[in-house]
Amino acid sequence: EESQCYKTTRYPHLVTPHFLSLHLTLSFSLRCVLCVVSREMVASAFLPELWTEILIPVCAVVGIVFSLFQWFIVSRVRVSADQGASSSSGGANNGKNGYGDYLIEEEEGVNDQSVVAKCAEIQTAISEGATSFLFTEYRYVGVFMVIFAAIIFVFLGSVEGFSTENKPCTYDDTKTCKPALATAAFSTIAFILGAVTSVLSGFLGMKIATYANARTTLEARKGVGKAFIVAFRSGAVMGFLLAASGLLVLYITINVFKIYYGEDWEGLFEAITGYGLGGSSMALFGRVGGGIYTKAADVGADLVGKIERNIPEDDPRNPAVIADNVGDNVGDIAGMGSDLFGSYAEASCAALVVASISSFGINHDFTAMCYPLLISSMGILVCLITTLFATDFFEIKAVKEIEPALKNQLIISTVIMTVGIAIVSYVGLPSSFTIFNFGAQKVVKNWQLFLCVCVGLWAGLIIGFVTEYYTSNAYSPVQDVADSCRTGAATNVIFGLALGYKSVIIPIFAIAISIFVSFSFAAMYGVAVAALGMLSTIATGLAIDAYGPISDNAGGIAEMAGMSHRIRERTDALDAAGNTTAAIGKGFAIGSAALVSLALFGAFVSRAGVHTVDVLTPKVIIGLLVGAMLPYWFSAMTMKSVGSAALKMVEEVRRQFNTIPGLMEGTAKPDYATCVKISTDASIKEMIPPGCLVMLTPLIVGFFFGVETLSGVLAGSLVSGVQIAISASNTGGAWDNAKKYIEAGVSEHAKSLGPKGSEPHKAAVIGDTIGDPLKDTSGPSLNILIKLMAVESLVFAPFFATHGGILFKYL
Amino acid sequence: EESQCYKTTRYPHLVTPHFLSLHLTLSFSLRCVLCVVSREMVASAFLPELWTEILIPVCAVVGIVFSLFQWFIVSRVRVSADQGASSSSGGANNGKNGYGDYLIEEEEGVNDQSVVAKCAEIQTAISEGATSFLFTEYRYVGVFMVIFAAIIFVFLGSVEGFSTENKPCTYDDTKTCKPALATAAFSTIAFILGAVTSVLSGFLGMKIATYANARTTLEARKGVGKAFIVAFRSGAVMGFLLAASGLLVLYITINVFKIYYGEDWEGLFEAITGYGLGGSSMALFGRVGGGIYTKAADVGADLVGKIERNIPEDDPRNPAVIADNVGDNVGDIAGMGSDLFGSYAEASCAALVVASISSFGINHDFTAMCYPLLISSMGILVCLITTLFATDFFEIKAVKEIEPALKNQLIISTVIMTVGIAIVSYVGLPSSFTIFNFGAQKVVKNWQLFLCVCVGLWAGLIIGFVTEYYTSNAYSPVQDVADSCRTGAATNVIFGLALGYKSVIIPIFAIAISIFVSFSFAAMYGVAVAALGMLSTIATGLAIDAYGPISDNAGGIAEMAGMSHRIRERTDALDAAGNTTAAIGKGFAIGSAALVSLALFGAFVSRAGVHTVDVLTPKVIIGLLVGAMLPYWFSAMTMKSVGSAALKMVEEVRRQFNTIPGLMEGTAKPDYATCVKISTDASIKEMIPPGCLVMLTPLIVGFFFGVETLSGVLAGSLVSGVQIAISASNTGGAWDNAKKYIEAGVSEHAKSLGPKGSEPHKAAVIGDTIGDPLKDTSGPSLNILIKLMAVESLVFAPFFATHGGILFKYL
Repeated sequence: EESQCYKTTRYPHLVTPHFLSLHLTLSFSLRCVLCVVSREMVASAFLPELWTEILIPVCAVVGIVFSLFQWFIVSRVRVSADQGASSSSGGANNGKNGYGDYLIEEEEGVNDQSVVAKCAEIQTAISEGATSFLFTEYRYVGVFMVIFAAIIFVFLGSVEGFSTENKPCTYDDTKTCKPALATAAFSTIAFILGAVTSVLSGFLGMKIATYANARTTLEARKGVGKAFIVAFRSGAVMGFLLAASGLLVLYITINVFKIYYGEDWEGLFEAITGYGLGGSSMALFGRVGGGIYTKAADVGADLVGKIERNIPEDDPRNPAVIADNVGDNVGDIAGMGSDLFGSYAEASCAALVVASISSFGINHDFTAMCYPLLISSMGILVCLITTLFATDFFEIKAVKEIEPALKNQLIISTVIMTVGIAIVSYVGLPSSFTIFNFGAQKVVKNWQLFLCVCVGLWAGLIIGFVTEYYTSNAYSPVQDVADSCRTGAATNVIFGLALGYKSVIIPIFAIAISIFVSFSFAAMYGVAVAALGMLSTIATGLAIDAYGPISDNAGGIAEMAGMSHRIRERTDALDAAGNTTAAIGKGFAIGSAALVSLALFGAFVSRAGVHTVDVLTPKVIIGLLVGAMLPYWFSAMTMKSVGSAALKMVEEVRRQFNTIPGLMEGTAKPDYATCVKISTDASIKEMIPPGCLVMLTPLIVGFFFGVETLSGVLAGSLVSGVQIAISASNTGGAWDNAKKYIEAGVSEHAKSLGPKGSEPHKAAVIGDTIGDPLKDTSGPSLNILIKLMAVESLVFAPFFATHGGILFKYL
Repeated sequence: EESQCYKTTRYPHLVTPHFLSLHLTLSFSLRCVLCVVSREMVASAFLPELWTEILIPVCAVVGIVFSLFQWFIVSRVRVSADQGASSSSGGANNGKNGYGDYLIEEEEGVNDQSVVAKCAEIQTAISEGATSFLFTEYRYVGVFMVIFAAIIFVFLGSVEGFSTENKPCTYDDTKTCKPALATAAFSTIAFILGAVTSVLSGFLGMKIATYANARTTLEARKGVGKAFIVAFRSGAVMGFLLAASGLLVLYITINVFKIYYGEDWEGLFEAITGYGLGGSSMALFGRVGGGIYTKAADVGADLVGKIERNIPEDDPRNPAVIADNVGDNVGDIAGMGSDLFGSYAEASCAALVVASISSFGINHDFTAMCYPLLISSMGILVCLITTLFATDFFEIKAVKEIEPALKNQLIISTVIMTVGIAIVSYVGLPSSFTIFNFGAQKVVKNWQLFLCVCVGLWAGLIIGFVTEYYTSNAYSPVQDVADSCRTGAATNVIFGLALGYKSVIIPIFAIAISIFVSFSFAAMYGVAVAALGMLSTIATGLAIDAYGPISDNAGGIAEMAGMSHRIRERTDALDAAGNTTAAIGKGFAIGSAALVSLALFGAFVSRAGVHTVDVLTPKVIIGLLVGAMLPYWFSAMTMKSVGSAALKMVEEVRRQFNTIPGLMEGTAKPDYATCVKISTDASIKEMIPPGCLVMLTPLIVGFFFGVETLSGVLAGSLVSGVQIAISASNTGGAWDNAKKYIEAGVSEHAKSLGPKGSEPHKAAVIGDTIGDPLKDTSGPSLNILIKLMAVESLVFAPFFATHGGILFKYL
């Protein structure tokens, strides 16, 4: 490199002016810049510390303000029928919408206040159901949080026998570090902060979604574009709020903790890992509890309503219909929000803890240390620009424009973010620095780290597109599955399972390449920033993701409010696009979970003082084998839970149909509340065993078998869990869209399989029902399994290193 | 230990005569014996070399003779209607059976020669179909074998550039070893021998099964006990023939190769590994090809016959019925035979190759070296005694005695074998010896090795019983699945999948404990002998296993020959027991595959000179991740293949029902041959891509990425594949038996779900159909995936170590 550099600068005439050479010139020049830069080995980041201190919170606040602004726009759509009680800031309601536009596409019922009243009523029911469930859930989870906080404090405090003395630092014994007791206390605080932020993220997400669903329905009266914008803006509210508040809380926590820790950055960032653990453990309960809730209701409602009674989805006569709609909000919105917040918090923590024992931490280079936060800050700005493409720069006019618009969001955000990462890497990092690599320090260049982040970012995009290919009914895989319904449900299931298995291949290669590149360049720090790269566009990802359940709910409300066929068709079109984007979102969540948990795993082994995890030792190989089994155990629990809860729901729904006179005729109202209660009780009860499995496994394995076996367990559950998670999500998504493909009947082929109620359609409905727990309960929960076990191991690493493996010690 | 020993012998009065102390005395005495024994570190095995040379072939011949004797007994049941052409050696046919017994339980049709003629005709059709398919398969496989033999020779020969010079040995450079070219040539020969033995095992198994099926049907006229004995004896023919011939061929090969290799045991046993590769690669095609064949026919027949046309299983009007019955023989019999033979050959090779670089090989202790073969020899004798318990010591009189009789076989063989292993370990091993442990030598006591074999043997039993618990409809898991059929096929599938996932837990712990114990005591040699322990009762295992498809066929023949309802009930009872034992057999096959492939993996890394496989390196972790993905890729291929082939079959069956007049009325005969052809063509065509995936992956990864990444791939596919294989087999078995539970209606609960044709039964049939490819195609093929990749890596290890990893070398 140096000699090339020399050549290009010394003999400029060698660079010919031909067009083809221009490229070479540029690439040489770039390499020269890097050559020069790399010579200053001790240089610190370009960006002064003060600027970093200002920029990060400013970006976070910008994100929050943008989010509030979107909420304001959504709130201008009026739901209340009563003009006086309207929450809207202005605008007449006769023939005008919330923006003051006249309702151009006239529709029967558009001026009918009774429809608006009906929507408002249903919205209130859904919102109340969701709020009540989340409060019940949080009560149980709160108890867990207190107990677990105590465990963290006692276990970590015991590492040095609750000594309050300062001690020499682990990585530099000339300096003094804070005692383990302090780390115990601050880890506990960070844990609680992470948990509370996660809970708030989920709760606010749910509130926004239940605020937006009826508004989307009402806007659908004016056209599909209007409805799309409301749903998408609401998703953006959630996305930005979550990304920005996660960043802000983390940033403030670091700065507050720094007051105590001072120069002991090692201890500071060890304590910060509690934030990731808190975020992710709440996400576990959110995902599992919410997942069981939503699918028990959904499966129960479908089994009786669609299959036995032959009434449409979301028909108000179905007693489980409110529970089903509540489920979308607590499972797909609150659960997903907590999950991605957890990933984000963990990836940041993993990167920070590795950085703190690298040259950034040793040289006290605050800007470079905050590189992960700067990436996230840049991500908020990039997503802000990206959002404008969907909401302001272009307008959706037809159904077929929805999916491309959502896909473009992914592409635009990835492309702009690549530039953003380059900027952050240039100004935020020294040109050369060292990274802790399991006992040694490894020299890394800033452009190498740029590539690490980029490879994660682009791998996310690839995973997204592959997921779309396998789950959208615009392509042959789902069409083949739909076609196999001709011969009944059995072949549908066989083809669907095969599709899910097959869809794993490319994402795994994408993840493997990301790991190889980032690991080779910058060890576990590289993997952590690759994960952050994948998550950097989280605001856009969440917006797209939340859009799905909001549209789904909007359709449900339209059906329940007895709105016309045309409205329902529009919301269905929104929903179909939402199914695919939901699958894409799950793909992102799983891909990032894989990278995050590997990074956490790396941070864990670093912190536990393990230098090799050798498969050729009995302790590790049994860990690997048992670890690979855990996702199966976990899935068995969650799927069985959904099944049992659904059976209870079916019995209740059947009972109501059989005992309430006039229910089928629509003259009597069903008892929605009992169904909501069944879902609530089942999910609260059933989320405990899988929760215990995940939370206790690292503690038991670490305490009894030690860090080597625990390393094996983490690696095993990672490599096995990723596969099941991807295949489960995609199988479920494909079945859902195969069913929608037959229902929509837009091609000759689809028409030959339909219409609704035909034998192939019935087979497709069975597949869809089987896919529900796979794609919305067990699949997505597995992300959390692999991440959470890793972050928990990381937090408890000093305890295991000191007191762990007692079985082998005394045997 | 020494001091305790001293105390007991010096102060005998300390050993009080109380009853409780007796135990202590015994245990102390045993330890004393071991103390004394362990002092002579250089002692060789108790059993003289000459005895070993005689005992092993004698046992093998005893096994073969016993097998032929069983065949002789089975052959006395006469199938030919024509008295003159009877193959029976004697016995009148009027009112007497083949043994000369009078037919006590008279049944309509028992003296009806037309029924016998009909059975003979169907048997011939099945046998011809199976033979024709296997010949077609072997033609393709033969081409593969020649190509792959050439690859082995060229790749291994290239290690030392085809030099014919002798060279210093790897592990002892004072001695001279044979050149790599010799290893290449002899490996190739061993590969061909293994392949031919495997093919013969499968083929003979199929011949026996198709010989026995009609005989079982005819004996069923006289009672369930008679039918059971014929089916079980036929299974024993296959079991003993396979176990004994596998041992004999291996033994002769070693002795012949020894003539050339002389004192170079390292080279000798490296060359022998080709035997395992040959056996397993044929098993791959047998399992995959046979699995696709049988399930395409089965699914196709069921979808049209049972679901659309509402005709019973195995109804002769169904055009796919012969193909279905042929499939049982080529898939479940020939495929299973090749599979278990492969496991057995590989476990022996893995043990031998590790032993050859341990003290056995270095000291040239032939008896100790042959310890794995002695275990297998003892196994044949033990299984011989065990078989007598089922065929001669006790008699089956009622249906409910069948399952216990089969389960007792497992228990009896395990208990007797434990004693057998103790004897072999005592006489066949020096009291203390060293085992190669990735670069170091580890001291092992003979009692430790005894424990290694035992832990494998007993883990096999535990896996068998757990499998039985989860797949037999006598227990609650399957009954729960059956119960979930009330709410339709979707809940049935959800519960079935959850059951399969859950059934993984205990087997994995059993395997993990076996690995931990055997690995800790004797490194990879321990794991290899644990695998051999699990496989030591292979003759009994195969007998039980082969019994299932024979009974299944017998039922089919009874239905097709138009025999009475009572006969069909008896064969159904035999078949139901067979379903569970088939699942147990699959559990064994998977458990042993896990141990075998770990042992092979260990032998591979030893031979490739790898000392650590560190998960904390990018090369290994990406291997692990991609390796864990391979079973999904493979399953996607095989399941899709079954699905597509079944669709073709459905079309053909529908076409025949629609176009052949009088078919449904039974006045016209269907065109069986076309259905047989569809299955044959589909399976031949579809077995190639999964075959290539398995065979090429180690070559590609080893050549381009090197031995570290390949180690990761092997470990990843092992830990992930075991889980999918177990869960797929058990899910399928559970669905099958849930359906049978509803059909049999033996309890109040079962009756409330039935009868045949009810809605829950229809849901159960859908589950059964989905389970078919899971339990008979993709699940069992995964055993071979994990074993075969490991043994292939082992054979090519010197090549990869010399020329592998070119991508990293030149990047």
